[in-house]
Amino acid sequence: MKARIFVTLKGGVLDPQGRAIHHALEGLGFDGVNDVRAGKLIELDLADGTSDEDIDAMCRKLLANTVIENYRIEKGI
Amino acid sequence: MKARIFVTLKGGVLDPQGRAIHHALEGLGFDGVNDVRAGKLIELDLADGTSDEDIDAMCRKLLANTVIENYRIEKGI
Repeated sequence: MKARIFVTLKGGVLDPQGRAIHHALEGLGFDGVNDVRAGKLIELDLADGTSDEDIDAMCRKLLANTVIENYRIEKGI
Repeated sequence: MKARIFVTLKGGVLDPQGRAIHHALEGLGFDGVNDVRAGKLIELDLADGTSDEDIDAMCRKLLANTVIENYRIEKGI
């Protein structure tokens, strides 16, 4: 079973990586970029039968820092 | 207009970050994790009317290293 975890910074949290990307895009001549936020995508290949609670626990304990980050779980086939 | 770029390592490319996450999950007692791959999620807030070609060019020129990474563009509202 595959699961994808999307980890994004919460709204008010400064994002230096996103700022650097934004700056670089402008330097390359791409106008019309209002904002850039950088996040993480973690793809898990899990044994069948891994519970939703286990996946949520992985996110809370390791994959996301819930003080400053949100996470979203997308379960695949 | 929002766009999300998902950047993932190509199949055969070694992923030390994914290995480290895998190892840490096992250390926390999560069994049944077969594989972990780490990627990037970049959220762009773009001016309306930014063309698909422009977004694709951003990916090829800056956001993804197409030698070792794949990217997928998801356009939002």
